[in-house]
Amino acid sequence: MGIVINLEDEKKDKGKEALENLLELVQDDLDKVNQTILLKMQSPVALIPQLAGHLIASGGKRLRPMLTLAASRLCGYEGDRHIQLATCVEFIHSATLLHDDVVDKSDLRRGEDTANAIWGNKASVLVGDFLFSRSFELMVEDGSLEVLRILSSASSIIAEGEVMQLVTANDTDTTEHAYMEVICAKTAALFAAACEIGGVIAERPKSECEALMSYGQNLGIIFQLIDDVLDYSAEQKTLGKSVGDDFQEGKITLPIVLAFRRGTDEEREFWKRTMEDLDQKDGDLDYAIELMEKHNALTDTIERARHYGKIACDALAIFPDTQHRKALTGIIEFCINRAY
Amino acid sequence: MGIVINLEDEKKDKGKEALENLLELVQDDLDKVNQTILLKMQSPVALIPQLAGHLIASGGKRLRPMLTLAASRLCGYEGDRHIQLATCVEFIHSATLLHDDVVDKSDLRRGEDTANAIWGNKASVLVGDFLFSRSFELMVEDGSLEVLRILSSASSIIAEGEVMQLVTANDTDTTEHAYMEVICAKTAALFAAACEIGGVIAERPKSECEALMSYGQNLGIIFQLIDDVLDYSAEQKTLGKSVGDDFQEGKITLPIVLAFRRGTDEEREFWKRTMEDLDQKDGDLDYAIELMEKHNALTDTIERARHYGKIACDALAIFPDTQHRKALTGIIEFCINRAY
Repeated sequence: MGIVINLEDEKKDKGKEALENLLELVQDDLDKVNQTILLKMQSPVALIPQLAGHLIASGGKRLRPMLTLAASRLCGYEGDRHIQLATCVEFIHSATLLHDDVVDKSDLRRGEDTANAIWGNKASVLVGDFLFSRSFELMVEDGSLEVLRILSSASSIIAEGEVMQLVTANDTDTTEHAYMEVICAKTAALFAAACEIGGVIAERPKSECEALMSYGQNLGIIFQLIDDVLDYSAEQKTLGKSVGDDFQEGKITLPIVLAFRRGTDEEREFWKRTMEDLDQKDGDLDYAIELMEKHNALTDTIERARHYGKIACDALAIFPDTQHRKALTGIIEFCINRAY
Repeated sequence: MGIVINLEDEKKDKGKEALENLLELVQDDLDKVNQTILLKMQSPVALIPQLAGHLIASGGKRLRPMLTLAASRLCGYEGDRHIQLATCVEFIHSATLLHDDVVDKSDLRRGEDTANAIWGNKASVLVGDFLFSRSFELMVEDGSLEVLRILSSASSIIAEGEVMQLVTANDTDTTEHAYMEVICAKTAALFAAACEIGGVIAERPKSECEALMSYGQNLGIIFQLIDDVLDYSAEQKTLGKSVGDDFQEGKITLPIVLAFRRGTDEEREFWKRTMEDLDQKDGDLDYAIELMEKHNALTDTIERARHYGKIACDALAIFPDTQHRKALTGIIEFCINRAY
């Protein structure tokens, strides 16, 4: 067992190293993005910067804007439009988080009280709307109709994905296919758009823009799959949210889809009671994790993630093997190795 | 008294006639807008057209898209871009209504159950997000950066206005000035944008686009002022919402601002108890209306509306005196006379 643990530690370290590599490459740009975020969320209505600032300061990794920055530089872009567009991407992400908080009644996000818990539903919806609108204003200021097309289309797809998730929530009949459709829309679409616009502003040919989109799409899938795994395995202090949040809400994620399908009739009754009827008692979460282990549901979800990781890696192969490509490839590892 | 009543009936009829005049002028275009609305709210995710369809079918007057249609035609526009842009305007309005429903916990809107009451908070937020994103997609499809600038800026202002209202809600210290700032943002900005884009697509000079914007802005103010009056005077069957909804929520509107400022110390205590502490009992609403009558708060709110009506009317004076200008001028009367 000692060897396994060391191996896992090593993977984790390798993942962290990849994030640090990327961070180092885009640090100057990212500082500018952070300044732009602070500047553009200002409003004479004080609650807006208060609430938005709380969310934005509460320590997201800025992974999505970093992708825009790195993708632009990978394509040899030398201007500064990527700063404002990376800000747009983060604003769309933040708006989604605020609206998600309203929706999920979650009490913890990254270990802090959510904006919703502090300021209430109303404020979260409306400040989310503000960030979303502001994001469009910034894109319009940038002035590229192609970028506008990509990001407005991604926004529609995200909203569709969120509604899809709402409709399929608590349904143990959900197939892996249906689940993948949801996460492609609600999570991966923004990753894909964040990367693609880097190629667009660098005026690279369609093949390269599509390669970036494919990389982003697959990275987003990995990110969400591993997030779903972490919900059953991370320590709260690492993840900043409680283990079992998804379980408590009856949220059907891939680990559950796999455990349900591979389970006995009796086990399926357990999943129906806890996920569909939300009739949960002490010990149910432990038993759920036991069933996932029995059926390799968590490890196989990570395996699935590896598959998408390979596609993401190959998508980048048409680009010259620069530091930026290496860093973006490394991020695939980082996203997968979060699971260890 | 008989004379007064007849006069009021006459005003009401004159208002209705004005709406019918406008409707007749834009009917063909409006039919196309309604078709476009139905087409563009489609999604493979069935809940989206279900919920959006419920809201959109539930009988709004389509006043905002009609303004875009009429403003375009007033400017001599002969293409068909105004159809899709009027659809954008209605989608932004619908998204705002859905998010308002989440916020206000209102149970009735135009006499129907709200989407929120039927499908819940989650669905209303997310389908609102979808309509909002779809609206931007349609604008991007239209391709005018100037139109995008106007509508994305209006969206930010609306969101700011909604947050401002949230912050000042229940505060009896609210001045008329502060209240006007809120309604200029949350209501009038979309009316202004709806009109302005008509001039933009007709490629009219700045002076005309600004005239349309000013007309829309002032019309929007009137619309909201009269809405606030109606909340204390309309019969539920006419308005489709209960008299006293605003009172029950402790929502500070101009009639309250006026009654509070003009009131005695004792009366101000009443407003503080009912509006700020939301400590309300049987008979309070009747007493509130009595105080408004005592201080002419409702009639003076209508007087204020007339002032903005004159500005709106003069704004249009630079246009030739066509049927469309007559109809748009008539709509000012319609909005004011809703109060009778």
